[in-house]
Amino acid sequence: MSDMTCLFQNVRYLTPDFTVAEGCIGVSGKEIVYIGTEPPQNATPETVIDGCGKLLLPGLVNTHTHLAMSLLRGYGENLSLQDWLFTRIFPFEAKLTGEAIYWGTLLSIAESLRFGVTSATDMYMDVDAVCRAAAVSGFKINASLMAPVGGDDKTEQPFVGAAKALADWHNYDGGRIKIDSYIHAEYTTDEQRSRLMRDLAVQHGLNMHLHLSETKLEHEECKQRHGGLTPAAWFASLGVLDVPTTVAHAVWVEPADIELLAKHGATVAHNPISNLKLASGIAPVPAMLDAGVNVALGTDSAASNNNLNLWEEMKLMGLLHKANCANPTLITPQQVLRAATVGGALSQGRQDTGEIALGKKADLQLIDISQPHMHPCHDMLNNLVFAAQGSDVVLTMVDGQILYHNGEYPTLNLPEIIAHVEAERQRILAQL
Amino acid sequence: MSDMTCLFQNVRYLTPDFTVAEGCIGVSGKEIVYIGTEPPQNATPETVIDGCGKLLLPGLVNTHTHLAMSLLRGYGENLSLQDWLFTRIFPFEAKLTGEAIYWGTLLSIAESLRFGVTSATDMYMDVDAVCRAAAVSGFKINASLMAPVGGDDKTEQPFVGAAKALADWHNYDGGRIKIDSYIHAEYTTDEQRSRLMRDLAVQHGLNMHLHLSETKLEHEECKQRHGGLTPAAWFASLGVLDVPTTVAHAVWVEPADIELLAKHGATVAHNPISNLKLASGIAPVPAMLDAGVNVALGTDSAASNNNLNLWEEMKLMGLLHKANCANPTLITPQQVLRAATVGGALSQGRQDTGEIALGKKADLQLIDISQPHMHPCHDMLNNLVFAAQGSDVVLTMVDGQILYHNGEYPTLNLPEIIAHVEAERQRILAQL
Repeated sequence: MSDMTCLFQNVRYLTPDFTVAEGCIGVSGKEIVYIGTEPPQNATPETVIDGCGKLLLPGLVNTHTHLAMSLLRGYGENLSLQDWLFTRIFPFEAKLTGEAIYWGTLLSIAESLRFGVTSATDMYMDVDAVCRAAAVSGFKINASLMAPVGGDDKTEQPFVGAAKALADWHNYDGGRIKIDSYIHAEYTTDEQRSRLMRDLAVQHGLNMHLHLSETKLEHEECKQRHGGLTPAAWFASLGVLDVPTTVAHAVWVEPADIELLAKHGATVAHNPISNLKLASGIAPVPAMLDAGVNVALGTDSAASNNNLNLWEEMKLMGLLHKANCANPTLITPQQVLRAATVGGALSQGRQDTGEIALGKKADLQLIDISQPHMHPCHDMLNNLVFAAQGSDVVLTMVDGQILYHNGEYPTLNLPEIIAHVEAERQRILAQL
Repeated sequence: MSDMTCLFQNVRYLTPDFTVAEGCIGVSGKEIVYIGTEPPQNATPETVIDGCGKLLLPGLVNTHTHLAMSLLRGYGENLSLQDWLFTRIFPFEAKLTGEAIYWGTLLSIAESLRFGVTSATDMYMDVDAVCRAAAVSGFKINASLMAPVGGDDKTEQPFVGAAKALADWHNYDGGRIKIDSYIHAEYTTDEQRSRLMRDLAVQHGLNMHLHLSETKLEHEECKQRHGGLTPAAWFASLGVLDVPTTVAHAVWVEPADIELLAKHGATVAHNPISNLKLASGIAPVPAMLDAGVNVALGTDSAASNNNLNLWEEMKLMGLLHKANCANPTLITPQQVLRAATVGGALSQGRQDTGEIALGKKADLQLIDISQPHMHPCHDMLNNLVFAAQGSDVVLTMVDGQILYHNGEYPTLNLPEIIAHVEAERQRILAQL
């Protein structure tokens, strides 16, 4: 135990079976190496953190986001989807550069860490800029294989830099950064490109990330285009779902789609806030859970949320389906916590994290449970899902490295990031 | 200006027309006495607060809650309404005492202040215990005229202590505490008692607080009982709505009910989180706003929420109706901020607060806008409603008195409150 890097002492923690235990958790390098009721013998940890009044949880996993779009936070509100996209989002995005994407991604990583999010599945232009931001921050990421702004994503080949991006970034830093194959959505791809991205995933052992049945229009138009096949059925027919796939939204999936997703072991990234904000609808999550689909959570981008606080998605997952199905017994706190932690980790193809267990990666968040809104505690899981705040997080650790602690970011210069983001925003607005 | 008690210097603030200005706000005693771009001349404020990186807002008003029910936070989850009430809530409540209600109310006041809430419309047993808690804390409250536990609320007379409660507490401390007349709901009252509580309100100049059409069952059963009259129509027929009234929930109101509420100048306390959690449904808020109803916000109790963070209700009010009506253009940030501030103040019969304007009561919250989730700022109102956190509040002031500042409560002993709440919780559980 002489190489223990961090010891959480006298801390309550969430076990893999979603009970709360109390003891000491030791970290060495990137892994959890000690769990016990007493401090380890002969250990000389570099850092000891007192857990009094705190609870240690697995870090949260944001399974669908577009990090750099924090640059557009609050830029378009109360608009129809078409107006939002064509008068706000697309014109702004056309002025983005790799530099802007790099700084926007860093801002979102800082925000994510502040709310206990240790990993994100990102889908945004310029995979190199995204991965550079993840690399310097210490954050964990599955980044979609996307070309720089104005790139050739939609041609019959993956963008010309794909091989370089895979060589540079896939499994970087012991797998902290992973590259996902990527199809934007059924309505923006074709059969040839879909097969190509599937083959790329198979060839390189990548996961797949795509949008699926987010809006009713998209779902119905797909059926018209493809002889009655829904987006899920169409992607399945092309073999895309044979790859480990995370589908974002799945608001309008039908019962047969849910069976198909379950059969293929796909993950649904449930984005309740974005789905409300863009008036897309409410995904049939209880039916997905009943069918055994791996449900995970996502914030979508800050442009349709407008933050990256996954704790808000947790509470809304717990609330929304009760009213939507007129049944207050639906969705347990355990199901919500599972979706936000180990469900997300599995979605990213990361069997080595998402739980506080020996040998797992130390992707952790420490939360303050001493504030008024966390008292009394009849049931900690109820308090976590329905009363806790993302801001209760006081420490976030990724691969054993402390990346956020009481307002400080050891790997990030927040004022510099904010200044760059503001400069990029001003530059782009001046060009519009 | 020599008697200025507090000066917020170089601070951005929300104006009554929901724009953001910058300058200095001076408070003397209970009131806002200075608003200017430059600091006041010849002023020697006792306290100067630097507003750099901060935004000053009117305090939030929670227009429907049961504060002492924080004692039951997380006590019953994933239960049908009947199971929740009869196996959890009612048995626990039967063991409450005035002492338990006092400490539970204080805990909820501490939580409210932490999230920038300066005033609440409470409905709970033992108006004396509730008002004692409000009195010592400095919090602003409209407390319902309710008897102690096991009291005689439902007899044909108001409870025997009503005259004493009115004498002791109505307009206490310059109106900081007000007493509301109260009818629980149509399904728990009768014509005689409803008229009696209306007459009491008229006689003493009180507002009225009641539950209305929270569940479909309650709404439909009322129509069966009262010859087709909805709860709103029935209360109107008894003259109850002639009193300034706040109706909580109004989930199942019909178009004619909405017209009736608008005509009588009633307030709807919209409780979106509680309505989702208990699977009651989604109130037709856009139609209410179109009809000119004063819509305000409430958290309901911590037993069906499970916190008192009104910022969460603000975001959900902004989100929910977009999806519910399949129209993303509905509900503007201005409408949300109005509901949470001046709309709530008007609901409480308080024309003297809810805005940052000369001569208004200094019921204020100062929020930190420097954190990552508040950058960049394309539009401050969008950021406030959709990105901000209740925990961004760093200072809460009621009637010119600072009641919360950076984790400290000048008027409350938080560890003592938490210890008493925990002791009461243990005592009650041991008796069940």
